Amino acid sequence: MAMQVKNEGIATMIEWLASYGRTKADGVTRLLYSPPWIEAQHALKNKMENIGLYAYYDCVGNLFGRLQGTDPTSKTILTGSHVDTVIEGGKYDGAYGILASLLAVERLAKVYGAPKKTIEVVSFCEEEGSRFPITFWGSRNINNIYSLQDVRHLTDIDGVPFLQAMADAGFDYHNYRTPARTDIENFIELHIEQGCILEKSKNTIGIVSHIVGQRRFNITLIGESNHAGTTPMQYRNDSIALASDFIHFTTNFTGECDPNLVATFGKFIAKPNVPNVIAGEVELSLDIRHHNEAILDTFCDHIFSYLKDKAVHLDFKVSISQWMDVKPIAMCPEINKYIEDITTSKKIPHQYLISGAGHDSQVFGSFFPTTLLFVPSVKGISHSPKEYTSVEDLEKGIEVLTDLLYKLAY
Amino acid sequence: MAMQVKNEGIATMIEWLASYGRTKADGVTRLLYSPPWIEAQHALKNKMENIGLYAYYDCVGNLFGRLQGTDPTSKTILTGSHVDTVIEGGKYDGAYGILASLLAVERLAKVYGAPKKTIEVVSFCEEEGSRFPITFWGSRNINNIYSLQDVRHLTDIDGVPFLQAMADAGFDYHNYRTPARTDIENFIELHIEQGCILEKSKNTIGIVSHIVGQRRFNITLIGESNHAGTTPMQYRNDSIALASDFIHFTTNFTGECDPNLVATFGKFIAKPNVPNVIAGEVELSLDIRHHNEAILDTFCDHIFSYLKDKAVHLDFKVSISQWMDVKPIAMCPEINKYIEDITTSKKIPHQYLISGAGHDSQVFGSFFPTTLLFVPSVKGISHSPKEYTSVEDLEKGIEVLTDLLYKLAY
Repeated sequence: MAMQVKNEGIATMIEWLASYGRTKADGVTRLLYSPPWIEAQHALKNKMENIGLYAYYDCVGNLFGRLQGTDPTSKTILTGSHVDTVIEGGKYDGAYGILASLLAVERLAKVYGAPKKTIEVVSFCEEEGSRFPITFWGSRNINNIYSLQDVRHLTDIDGVPFLQAMADAGFDYHNYRTPARTDIENFIELHIEQGCILEKSKNTIGIVSHIVGQRRFNITLIGESNHAGTTPMQYRNDSIALASDFIHFTTNFTGECDPNLVATFGKFIAKPNVPNVIAGEVELSLDIRHHNEAILDTFCDHIFSYLKDKAVHLDFKVSISQWMDVKPIAMCPEINKYIEDITTSKKIPHQYLISGAGHDSQVFGSFFPTTLLFVPSVKGISHSPKEYTSVEDLEKGIEVLTDLLYKLAY
Repeated sequence: MAMQVKNEGIATMIEWLASYGRTKADGVTRLLYSPPWIEAQHALKNKMENIGLYAYYDCVGNLFGRLQGTDPTSKTILTGSHVDTVIEGGKYDGAYGILASLLAVERLAKVYGAPKKTIEVVSFCEEEGSRFPITFWGSRNINNIYSLQDVRHLTDIDGVPFLQAMADAGFDYHNYRTPARTDIENFIELHIEQGCILEKSKNTIGIVSHIVGQRRFNITLIGESNHAGTTPMQYRNDSIALASDFIHFTTNFTGECDPNLVATFGKFIAKPNVPNVIAGEVELSLDIRHHNEAILDTFCDHIFSYLKDKAVHLDFKVSISQWMDVKPIAMCPEINKYIEDITTSKKIPHQYLISGAGHDSQVFGSFFPTTLLFVPSVKGISHSPKEYTSVEDLEKGIEVLTDLLYKLAY
């Protein structure tokens, strides 16, 4: 199989990588340090070697395939994505970025030979947080944010300690020394959009200007549980009614505040949750995202003032507890301009957009000039076996990535 | 103990009956045909006999204590309530009505001797539906609505068949013949309000003009589950957002439609119910009550039109399934006028009100002139160990009931 790589198209390679961890529903479950993960990384290492790259792991299992540049003083252009998946995920999320980078670098090497600047294709060991309660284990190690201290206490759902899983996969933690890199010039990540903006606008390439900031809250509303028949409306402290009022208000205010703002109440738990009793308590989750901190501030102030005023006025207890605060990150405008020039000259329909999801680029964006490119996701579906992008769109992404890497490294 | 009954006050008797099925939290769990239920009925039978009533069971376990009238052609004035409780219920719900009737009849017999019309005190075997999925088993048998056919298939949560539980309690279903009564002239039920209207108005006696009709629905909203970050607000089919909009609309419309109307969304189940995923589905319960069918019709038409229009407009699937339709029942205005005369002449603060909860009176109200009287519930709390009514209010209720029974039977 290894010798066939030069003739393989992206569709074949997607299926090939999906074979490591394929599920009955034709999805992929490839959790960090699990057997399918180990096999996938080793297979990718073989592929890298077979197309002439120098392939190596760092001490946490990030895999790199290096195409050495001719300029010995040059830094490294890093490109790729993550190899792990969610449970019952799709074939494209992460995988496409690695395979597209491999194909792009293979084509460049074949046509132009060695670049001036070194290019490395990366297959990050972990981004999703699906096995252990930690995300970005790969890219945050490379950027010196995480070390062993951050995982010593973690176990997976079966009680397997993080460090044991890591050792069992061939990365003995006794050999750990920081895999932080200081030689990165740029990081470029090609990914499926996992949203429906490109599909709706009929554009093939999304140039990401920003990755949103994310704030997540747990909100508890405590009113009074009471009889659904004998308590007149004006004497009720109905927690479901107040929660609904707040959700209605917040949802309506998003558009008024900013068209790019999203606010999601994904979790709604009522107590006692029976038909003939007024709910005494509701627990809500609220996830708010925007690429501008000031707008996040304005939005949060406005909606939480509304809720607190209501609570005082109607005699409810309200608790609002924030458990996530991820700052927005801007992608590199100069690199984005290169992409825009490429897509314009090739007449590839494109647009700027904002990534509403987190990505490895978000970690790199704080340290190195970085960008993120999207190709369309059919119906915006992701983290599902139904995840799909057409071969034509996958190919266009690789074409743009190839030209961009040429611009940056040759 | 039996000999002490004539010196006992209502407070002592409430504690005595609560001793059958008393819980650690000082509540009461006395489920149909369970050991505490058997003991309570047998103890009540003893009490009845000790105050000179002829006590007997019918074939389903309704207990009657008969004070024979002097007029052999007279029908029977029936008074009482139910002996069963919810799980971890209070000491007053049902129990008060039985004990108050016993005390009233005992006083009447002592002071005035035999009545013209026969009076029977009843301890209905079942009203709550807490052990088996059936309610009003006692009063609906007496009114010829239920028979063995309605319970043959039922089991409790432990798999015990209804008929076996009945036989084990001493009511062998082979002996079943309809316990339907045709000799009832009136049914009078004294009960705690289980709401906060009397407490708020500082009235001691509530004269029930109507028992509300109840309609209950299961409503399912199916939108589309999607990524909380990558799906712009305008492309969402967020089921929690639509459910909240509908709840907000419905709750606001109750007051506009009629001040006596109550609508309760007590159950709210979202799927997948996680913070970073837009909910694809929500299941809601809706309980609507009013004493006028036309208002129930108008209300339901209006809110369900709103929901259906929204669903079409926003591309949701909505299913609305009604699983309860209990008609409103008017209590007897003539009997209520007697009560009003009694409370007015005795300067007992009173008011007319509507019962938002179902009661045995509701079953009798379709067949015989019936009424229901309330005494206040502190904070409106019921179906809870915290259920409480002051001794003064309990005594006032008995005083009014005594005078009413005198008016009806002597």
